[in-house]
Amino acid sequence: MAGSGEQEALVGNKQVIFKDFVSGFPKESDMFVTNGTVKLKLPEGSRAVLVKNLYLSCDPYMRNLMKPQDANYGSLFTCYTPGSPVSGSGVAKVLESGHPDIKEGDLVWGVTTWEEYSVIKAPETLTKIRHTDVPFSYYTGILVVPGLTAYAGFYEVCSPKKGEYVCVLCSGCCWSACWAIHKVDLLKNKLGFDEAFNYKEEHDLNEALKRYFPEGIDIYFENVGGKMLDAVLLNMRIHGRIAVCGMISQYNIDKPEGVSNLMNIVYKRVRVEGFAVLDYLHQYSKFLDTVIPLHQRWKDNICRGYCRGSGERSCCPGRTL
Amino acid sequence: MAGSGEQEALVGNKQVIFKDFVSGFPKESDMFVTNGTVKLKLPEGSRAVLVKNLYLSCDPYMRNLMKPQDANYGSLFTCYTPGSPVSGSGVAKVLESGHPDIKEGDLVWGVTTWEEYSVIKAPETLTKIRHTDVPFSYYTGILVVPGLTAYAGFYEVCSPKKGEYVCVLCSGCCWSACWAIHKVDLLKNKLGFDEAFNYKEEHDLNEALKRYFPEGIDIYFENVGGKMLDAVLLNMRIHGRIAVCGMISQYNIDKPEGVSNLMNIVYKRVRVEGFAVLDYLHQYSKFLDTVIPLHQRWKDNICRGYCRGSGERSCCPGRTL
Repeated sequence: MAGSGEQEALVGNKQVIFKDFVSGFPKESDMFVTNGTVKLKLPEGSRAVLVKNLYLSCDPYMRNLMKPQDANYGSLFTCYTPGSPVSGSGVAKVLESGHPDIKEGDLVWGVTTWEEYSVIKAPETLTKIRHTDVPFSYYTGILVVPGLTAYAGFYEVCSPKKGEYVCVLCSGCCWSACWAIHKVDLLKNKLGFDEAFNYKEEHDLNEALKRYFPEGIDIYFENVGGKMLDAVLLNMRIHGRIAVCGMISQYNIDKPEGVSNLMNIVYKRVRVEGFAVLDYLHQYSKFLDTVIPLHQRWKDNICRGYCRGSGERSCCPGRTL
Repeated sequence: MAGSGEQEALVGNKQVIFKDFVSGFPKESDMFVTNGTVKLKLPEGSRAVLVKNLYLSCDPYMRNLMKPQDANYGSLFTCYTPGSPVSGSGVAKVLESGHPDIKEGDLVWGVTTWEEYSVIKAPETLTKIRHTDVPFSYYTGILVVPGLTAYAGFYEVCSPKKGEYVCVLCSGCCWSACWAIHKVDLLKNKLGFDEAFNYKEEHDLNEALKRYFPEGIDIYFENVGGKMLDAVLLNMRIHGRIAVCGMISQYNIDKPEGVSNLMNIVYKRVRVEGFAVLDYLHQYSKFLDTVIPLHQRWKDNICRGYCRGSGERSCCPGRTL
């Protein structure tokens, strides 16, 4: 509905509302959609930014925000408030800006709200999208927080050396580049990984790791936790490194599983390092300079071949061959 | 018995024999003493060293050697053989040497055997004692592996910064400088620690840590494990460091306790680093240069005052005031 005179435009603005704290596996009924409206105009003198949300990301860390605030979260998480809309990472187009560095029409990524239009009150948390020759959805994954997390955890925390054995669990957001369907096949046969397996289908994780890593593991990118971590600890090599950015297997259970094989940290002199992407945001430019050319090469060669092989016309997210 | 002609001296040589693998808390009956004899003469052309053992050390890591060899021990431990004498760290005097760098009369420390006289077949593992103005027993503790472990774990692994909160569990060998009697009193009132408590007497370790570390813990020197580690994880500060050289609370139980609060490694971006003194042996000279003057200062001031205050004439090990 177009406004007239003093009256500004009022448009529909569906919102996803977080109903109440969740225990166990989240269900659809833990959220609901409202059909509200929003005025597409910032208040006079506001330094906020009004955006239209284009893509919203659903990331594993959000599961922790669905619990009552834990004192241990510290500066890392602020939990959702029951009755309020869900917040998360997303890509948006600027409709109006009160911030000097952001203009109408800019494409941005950052923390937004699960709704059609948002007023971002801390626009300094938004980042302008400069590389526009990639699908915008990549700015909810490989090119933003998930990608930077994988980059920082691997290169900065684990300091890989030539010849080392690396174990990455493709769960969580940071490996979402390997999307769900045919994940193992994709990893092993198209993306050039030496081995790949589905940890949920292995009865004996220790035995599986011994099979896939007969020489042991130098680097483990940890975002599963629990039994998987226990099995990995039995298979670490001397002076191995474990970068930990999450433990997804623990998020839907009320009492975390105990991890028993921690003495292997001593036997093998292993470094286990928790990290969060917020400590590596200053490396974002360096990260983009690394990953944009890699993405270009992947798009030109591997993905094209894979998609053709798969017989699907649009198996790669965001593009049709 | 003195030898005559071709016959060499044969003397009594009590040995402590490891009976069989131990489960649960070790008992006196897990070992026994034999009254054997030994020839006080090396074979012709031997490069070994014959020593009289003066002090033998009983260290926590030895508990792990009383179990069947665990594949995970790797290069860190070689377990005891049932029916063979116990080996461990000790101080000895050289009676005869086939090694060019070691002479009769030298005092040495290193790995020896629990017996009166030993033939050390790998004399390059022995270190000559150069500072002799300290009690020789210190070469089973503060001046050798336990001291170097504390030094490396604290300075090298944890990189302490001014103003940080440090939690050290005085269990295990590396803090044996604070010997058993009046440990808490000694630590708090005489050695200048801010606070000290007996973790075995606390019902709620998390609550105890919150009481003693209201601001949280930046550095934790871990050699207890289990429930203590779980409580510490809840109290770590952002970018805290945990140096792990052992988990003594787990050594006498068949199945290690599970540690549940590992997500705090992510929340607080904590670095947990396993280390073993064998990776820091090259720092031994630097360590001695640091610790010998510290010991001198302690002997001159604090210990003297404490011993006088205690009303005991020989409360400090190895010295009488």
